[in-house]
Amino acid sequence: MLQKLFLNPKNKFSTVKNLTRNNAYKKLSEQDISHFQKILGSNHVKQQEIQQYNNDWMNKYKGNSELVLFPTSTQELSQILKYCNLNKLAVVPQSGNTGLVGGSVPVFDEIIVNLQKMNKIINFDENSTVLTVEGGVILEEMNNYLKDYQCEIPWDLGAKGSCLIGGNISTNAGGKYYVKYGPLRANILGLEVVLPNGEVMDLQSQIRKDNTGIDLKQLFIGSEGILGIITKANILCSKLDNSRNLLYVNCSSYNDIIEVYKKAKKTLNKNLAAIEWMDAWSFNAVMETMTHINNPFNKKAEIDKDYFVLIEINSNHAMQELEDLLFEELQTVSGFKDAIKAQNETQFTEIWEIRETVGLASSKKSKYQFKYDISLDIKLMEKLTQDIRKKLENFDTEVVGYGHIGDSNLHINIILKDESQKEQVANIVEPYIFEYLQKVNGSISAEHGLGLMKAQYLHLQKPQIAIDQMKQLKNIFDPQHILNPYKCLP
Amino acid sequence: MLQKLFLNPKNKFSTVKNLTRNNAYKKLSEQDISHFQKILGSNHVKQQEIQQYNNDWMNKYKGNSELVLFPTSTQELSQILKYCNLNKLAVVPQSGNTGLVGGSVPVFDEIIVNLQKMNKIINFDENSTVLTVEGGVILEEMNNYLKDYQCEIPWDLGAKGSCLIGGNISTNAGGKYYVKYGPLRANILGLEVVLPNGEVMDLQSQIRKDNTGIDLKQLFIGSEGILGIITKANILCSKLDNSRNLLYVNCSSYNDIIEVYKKAKKTLNKNLAAIEWMDAWSFNAVMETMTHINNPFNKKAEIDKDYFVLIEINSNHAMQELEDLLFEELQTVSGFKDAIKAQNETQFTEIWEIRETVGLASSKKSKYQFKYDISLDIKLMEKLTQDIRKKLENFDTEVVGYGHIGDSNLHINIILKDESQKEQVANIVEPYIFEYLQKVNGSISAEHGLGLMKAQYLHLQKPQIAIDQMKQLKNIFDPQHILNPYKCLP
Repeated sequence: MLQKLFLNPKNKFSTVKNLTRNNAYKKLSEQDISHFQKILGSNHVKQQEIQQYNNDWMNKYKGNSELVLFPTSTQELSQILKYCNLNKLAVVPQSGNTGLVGGSVPVFDEIIVNLQKMNKIINFDENSTVLTVEGGVILEEMNNYLKDYQCEIPWDLGAKGSCLIGGNISTNAGGKYYVKYGPLRANILGLEVVLPNGEVMDLQSQIRKDNTGIDLKQLFIGSEGILGIITKANILCSKLDNSRNLLYVNCSSYNDIIEVYKKAKKTLNKNLAAIEWMDAWSFNAVMETMTHINNPFNKKAEIDKDYFVLIEINSNHAMQELEDLLFEELQTVSGFKDAIKAQNETQFTEIWEIRETVGLASSKKSKYQFKYDISLDIKLMEKLTQDIRKKLENFDTEVVGYGHIGDSNLHINIILKDESQKEQVANIVEPYIFEYLQKVNGSISAEHGLGLMKAQYLHLQKPQIAIDQMKQLKNIFDPQHILNPYKCLP
Repeated sequence: MLQKLFLNPKNKFSTVKNLTRNNAYKKLSEQDISHFQKILGSNHVKQQEIQQYNNDWMNKYKGNSELVLFPTSTQELSQILKYCNLNKLAVVPQSGNTGLVGGSVPVFDEIIVNLQKMNKIINFDENSTVLTVEGGVILEEMNNYLKDYQCEIPWDLGAKGSCLIGGNISTNAGGKYYVKYGPLRANILGLEVVLPNGEVMDLQSQIRKDNTGIDLKQLFIGSEGILGIITKANILCSKLDNSRNLLYVNCSSYNDIIEVYKKAKKTLNKNLAAIEWMDAWSFNAVMETMTHINNPFNKKAEIDKDYFVLIEINSNHAMQELEDLLFEELQTVSGFKDAIKAQNETQFTEIWEIRETVGLASSKKSKYQFKYDISLDIKLMEKLTQDIRKKLENFDTEVVGYGHIGDSNLHINIILKDESQKEQVANIVEPYIFEYLQKVNGSISAEHGLGLMKAQYLHLQKPQIAIDQMKQLKNIFDPQHILNPYKCLP
């Protein structure tokens, strides 16, 4: 099966290029546009200068839509979808357009329905700490709003300044505080969803416990906008602890990293807010390209001899005691070299920046890179990174490994200096990683979803019977298949 | 709608009595029994002395099944269901049979498939703290097994000594540590499920982050065995903290209870493991009937003047500091009267027992009682309890209010001294509570599910469009409707 997938030229890395428009979808007409103008007013129907909505932010995926709609209410969105469903016009729902897998831009000429104008914060209940918002609110804005209540949204993403809550929920976003808060779906108490036929399904709720019937809202969380569009959400927010601090630890092997993780988990337990690792390649990439960032250890990292762990501690009390306990434990790790503690908020931010700019640093080294966002047993993370490095030793590449060690989530960036080697590298790496993950029961998409990029690879992850059921679900909710076509499902 | 529901005699409290067997289901034959004996061996096919499987543990729901099957493996279960599906034999999956809503006993002659022989603990991974088990393992046994690793299952139930993990997951069980761990579904990483047609859907996973396709396993969590039978689960377990303690607080009004909750949440945040409240009626019922339990305050509680909160603190360090901080905060609550701290594990258990035996105490006062398990805004919990008390002042009843204040989960027991008033009381109370909950966006079933008891009331909770979608889901997974008929969906 796998062999076939990767050897068949139609199905290999360039899958996307071989897609053809499904001509069952109607082509947009002037009449359609007038109808949308009637619903939204002409200000919220955009036909000119819409390139930014057709392209993803990495400039990797480009669609050819001629129309972007900006509904301002559930009712307007409902009317749009009802019309599109009746007329078989394909639609791509667009949130902050910050995804990495081509999920939020059109593939061909789908109408873009952008949610950014549905951006009201509706209500916050201080007793229950439940925030009710429209789907188009920016993640960071919610956190700014919640500061007055010493609360925060129970997830955090690099794209927080531009990603929207509806997109976060539709992709079941992960991020750096997964260790602290668990999955996003654990804290979504209710949703309002507009179905592809325009019907509004009100599954809103502000209560934590409700065992009445099949929990339908779970289907919309993480299904990447193929079943419905999320217009409102009730989010269980979290109280911020009084204090937080950050340790940045240097060890001499990957095994030490695992030891550090185990000791941090044991010592801190619920006070462990985040734990991230990076190899020397990642560290050096940041230090070489991000000139504004201080090197906390004042020396270049030695390949295969320097590994780093960032540990964020959150606590309501006795921070010093926690730090001392942890530091004591770290001394017992055989390959422990050094640890630096943030002395103030500025240093806290600076140290986080080392970890958070690995992706940007990789891009600065070369604009051609492959990014993998995968899950696997933490014991295998470094091995896989090394294996890929070895496989590519005859190419002009750098392979950097880093990620959320507390969540079994590995990021690998392959920095490619010579663009002409792109296809060759892809053909070596892609099947290897995906087959390996299948073998070790990992995930080919830990955080970012399948989108357009990985829709065809779902069978590596889920049995055929499950894929068949997913397709049946799609048929129930979207019998005309107008919503986010070509994405997520094969 | 509501009026009609409760005035139509067919639909009122006695709904269950008016059900008739769906004669589309085949009647069991000798040939069927031989077939099951071939699959399971005759030891695991039981026809005699099966009353305990036909009755729920409260003796409230009674079925008339003639056959109990005890599969020992996924394959055996698969063969059973395949045969039942082909022959249109109805099946009720039975776990620990500890439910309160008639979900796990047959209504008529459904074949009982009891999961208790599928009780293997398969694997525990110390790095990831993921436990893999078969569906029939008892909750308490998993915790006993995990003690060696200083870990525990991330939920806890009164029925822990007999409930099975498959049933816990199928009902999305809640319990007292919801504050500490969040919903059960947040910690289920993977499932193996046998579908009604006998197909095995392997959705097992030991990784925390996996965003590939629609998350089908969510559908089986909390859908009460109407879509498939859970045979294996991967559970993310939690590290136990080093120390725990318990405070039992006495206040003079319900408003104080809310204040105590807010202060405990603010002071302890993630160290708050459980927070429960009870009124004077509950407290006195326990003290009157549970002679082995010490009264920690050495006095009878005064009605409307004594309210109680139990606060469990878990911490890895500095427990004394936490207790001091909390105690300081409690002093600022205007109606704060007294607080008792458990001095040792024995007292810890004794104090928890006060809260955990309210149900049993109610039963001891009279064998006729109505139990409500509902969710609503915590501000309204006491008001609703009082309102019901007032509505029943002409009857010989006691109304006790208590529950998980941290989860908005209220339990109300109505203790009925005179059996002849049963129908009258039900007709006053049931519509009132359910209508009230609908009005305030509460839940008619916070923890226990709908089962047979509340299947007909789903429309009070979910819009018709959602109920229609649930029915379509049922049709996808169980087109013959053989699995747990008459339950959960109207």
